Amino acid sequence: MAQEQQGLNEREMRAWRVFFQMQEVLRGRIEQQLQAGSDLSNADYTVLVALSEAPEGRLRAFELSRELGWEKSRLHHQLTRMCRRGLAERQSGPARAMYAAITPQGRAALQGAVPGHAEEVRRLVVDRLTAEQFHQLGEISAIILDGLREEEPAP
Amino acid sequence: MAQEQQGLNEREMRAWRVFFQMQEVLRGRIEQQLQAGSDLSNADYTVLVALSEAPEGRLRAFELSRELGWEKSRLHHQLTRMCRRGLAERQSGPARAMYAAITPQGRAALQGAVPGHAEEVRRLVVDRLTAEQFHQLGEISAIILDGLREEEPAP
Repeated sequence: MAQEQQGLNEREMRAWRVFFQMQEVLRGRIEQQLQAGSDLSNADYTVLVALSEAPEGRLRAFELSRELGWEKSRLHHQLTRMCRRGLAERQSGPARAMYAAITPQGRAALQGAVPGHAEEVRRLVVDRLTAEQFHQLGEISAIILDGLREEEPAP
Repeated sequence: MAQEQQGLNEREMRAWRVFFQMQEVLRGRIEQQLQAGSDLSNADYTVLVALSEAPEGRLRAFELSRELGWEKSRLHHQLTRMCRRGLAERQSGPARAMYAAITPQGRAALQGAVPGHAEEVRRLVVDRLTAEQFHQLGEISAIILDGLREEEPAP
């Protein structure tokens, strides 16, 4: 019993593995569609969405890395690639603040990608589930995500 | 309306983004623990689990790539790295079948990794949810995964 309370019992481990496997296969499929439809990776798309929804289309680098749950060096490399492709740019602000901003080209790429991406998400996820199940998936995800963010170290 | 049925409405898009964001942050956190605790990546761990559960600890390469939802070249590179580290080995079978097999060292690495991994999964996911929600997450994942596998092309 003590063992189970620390780790996972067999049924929990099975459920976890199905979840992990599902998200692994799904990410791959979602990325294939993005790449084929718009030449964006999951990472490009996620950064573009985050920046496009921020005020003035920009976020401080540490906010973006917290939002995405990425380490600093991963974000650095990703932004460098996106700047090179003209999808994003680095801007410096007051008090040595460093921002990442979406460019007009980045917005255009995102807008071009959304319809095909949304269609694929509908096909692979939304249409597979009842409305209630899809709603639950969103709620459960929000609970887990809140927990993950709570325990993040300060930048 | 027609628009919504093809793509996603705003509420659906929000739920999808929360899900995708959650799995992105969660994967990163799970991998950090695995790396720190046992020097395995998510990919190493996933391959070791799949092989350890297969009869005789081995699977044909195409079965493994289907199971993981990985393209052939990704599996090839992953296996090459794991063979180099002694975690897995390639075996040839009758009729030019190619197998990937877990080694005793791979089994030991997996056994060493499981307790810390399970504890992290409990902390980040299971303990955050009600038993009912965690059960739902497993069920919803199984439905999506079945759908993804149904439409996979034959090897």
